[in-house]
Amino acid sequence: MLGEVGERGVLAEVFAALADQPADGVLVGPGDDTAYLRARRGAVLATTDTMVLGQDWRDDWSTPQDVGVKATTQNLADIASMGGAGTGLLVTLAAHPRLPLAWARGLAEGLAWASRRSGVPVVGGDLSAAPAGVVMLGVTALGELPDGVEHPVLRDGARPGDVLAVSGPLGRSGAGLAQLLDGRAEGPWVDYHRRPWTDLGQGPRAALAGASSMIDVSDGLVRDADRVARASDVRIDLRPGAVDVLAAGLDGVPAEAARRAVLGGGEEHVLLATFAPDAVPSGWVPLGDVEACGRGEAAGVWLGPDRLDPARGGWDHYGG
Amino acid sequence: MLGEVGERGVLAEVFAALADQPADGVLVGPGDDTAYLRARRGAVLATTDTMVLGQDWRDDWSTPQDVGVKATTQNLADIASMGGAGTGLLVTLAAHPRLPLAWARGLAEGLAWASRRSGVPVVGGDLSAAPAGVVMLGVTALGELPDGVEHPVLRDGARPGDVLAVSGPLGRSGAGLAQLLDGRAEGPWVDYHRRPWTDLGQGPRAALAGASSMIDVSDGLVRDADRVARASDVRIDLRPGAVDVLAAGLDGVPAEAARRAVLGGGEEHVLLATFAPDAVPSGWVPLGDVEACGRGEAAGVWLGPDRLDPARGGWDHYGG
Repeated sequence: MLGEVGERGVLAEVFAALADQPADGVLVGPGDDTAYLRARRGAVLATTDTMVLGQDWRDDWSTPQDVGVKATTQNLADIASMGGAGTGLLVTLAAHPRLPLAWARGLAEGLAWASRRSGVPVVGGDLSAAPAGVVMLGVTALGELPDGVEHPVLRDGARPGDVLAVSGPLGRSGAGLAQLLDGRAEGPWVDYHRRPWTDLGQGPRAALAGASSMIDVSDGLVRDADRVARASDVRIDLRPGAVDVLAAGLDGVPAEAARRAVLGGGEEHVLLATFAPDAVPSGWVPLGDVEACGRGEAAGVWLGPDRLDPARGGWDHYGG
Repeated sequence: MLGEVGERGVLAEVFAALADQPADGVLVGPGDDTAYLRARRGAVLATTDTMVLGQDWRDDWSTPQDVGVKATTQNLADIASMGGAGTGLLVTLAAHPRLPLAWARGLAEGLAWASRRSGVPVVGGDLSAAPAGVVMLGVTALGELPDGVEHPVLRDGARPGDVLAVSGPLGRSGAGLAQLLDGRAEGPWVDYHRRPWTDLGQGPRAALAGASSMIDVSDGLVRDADRVARASDVRIDLRPGAVDVLAAGLDGVPAEAARRAVLGGGEEHVLLATFAPDAVPSGWVPLGDVEACGRGEAAGVWLGPDRLDPARGGWDHYGG
């Protein structure tokens, strides 16, 4: 238990697991009052996300390694969706003193795996005690834009005539969550839900290709596309055929559930971006068309004749 | 309650309270996937700290405004203790859905006050649900070094012959905490414990004056000076007269308690730095002398003939 080895003991475990990290650009790493990171481009991207036991993961579904990977993916996908690449991670663990030390070690192993795979090191963090039963993981990611990209890609740049495209499959995490809720413990979608991972290099690649807007799919296609539509004041028409093809890709998932997972499944973390029609990067799947809003029509997402409600299949931390 | 207004309702309150923030250097503020901040010097300082209800504050002692200020001070003091100035804050609130909305608004007011006073804006954050009774506040601070300072001031640069000096009074927060535990609800030290604030400009000032090491007093003079001593492999001899003068400054606190507060009181957040004897900035109080360790002697902190145990009066989140 953490309480038996003390703060120093926990940190020793964590640092041991993180020993083999990439160190490029880390001018001062963990151990002093702050980290000090190179920011070559004269500006820095910064984002933070928190996961709470019972709310964002269940210990009977996810190993601590899974939790470490998922938290890293969430944050680095946010950096990627601005067109950037991560440069460093700060990690906060707030946990009750009876948490097994092996859990903290496993978490650090997951962070280390994600760190090596992404090339983004853990450069600092904080360890806090929490009330009985509470475990909370906060990750802050810093990043920068690649050479050749002068501005981050925001949500508000989609223009009529653009094509909406996605950097990878959709619905895997949502389908996996539905299977876990149904009592299934194994399979590719369950695995993806436990440990989502996305090709982070697609973010800079999309920015270099001239993406006009970008977001990662964290709360579901409809909800995240709706954010782009509202920020850009446009209407996005999803292509029914493309949605069907994505749903058909969810092997072993019944058609209606697959469609629901594609439209509403969160924690997917692939990137959703808009491009001029001739600028969609190879490998990205065109999925919709950006149109001007009709007179008096509110911005939003449509599928054929239906306006899709972002609240359906979305996720609100306080249910509002 | 947060659960009644939903995530969007909580964020509306928070953004309203934060409307009048400094915006210099904020290229993209809250609302997109990440913030984007100027980093003129080509590198960025980054640190994070978490506060947990019941562990780091009590609602019967502290208002939400107090909590917002204290969290900001903690993090900006870490930036200052590297010689830097803050450029942006990311704030995470993880709270149970029955938390009163007024509490979240008060927290945002405290953050806004600290933001205006420090000139450092809140540029992003995250809102999460937490189990019943749990409220947790995470703050990440980013910063940069001032022109004329090429490297951050670390803990490991203290050299024999240097003078240890402090940027302000010591023991106020510790004395206030002791008074709160004794049932006192008012007075200057209680106020300081609730809402510590330090002159953040002293960090860059010390760096420009050539400070060889620096740390902020977050866990108590002895414990934080011991960190500097061990990192620098030196012995630090506190000057008994200086400790007495600092203790005498704690009006209304009995002598022994005042001395304990000066040596062991945490959450003070003034800066502790070492300088060449002729380089101590005006206004800083010389407090000790840096010496080489004797043969076979471990690095540490001494007061007269006594080696001081950093565990006494220090603070370990897991009691180890």
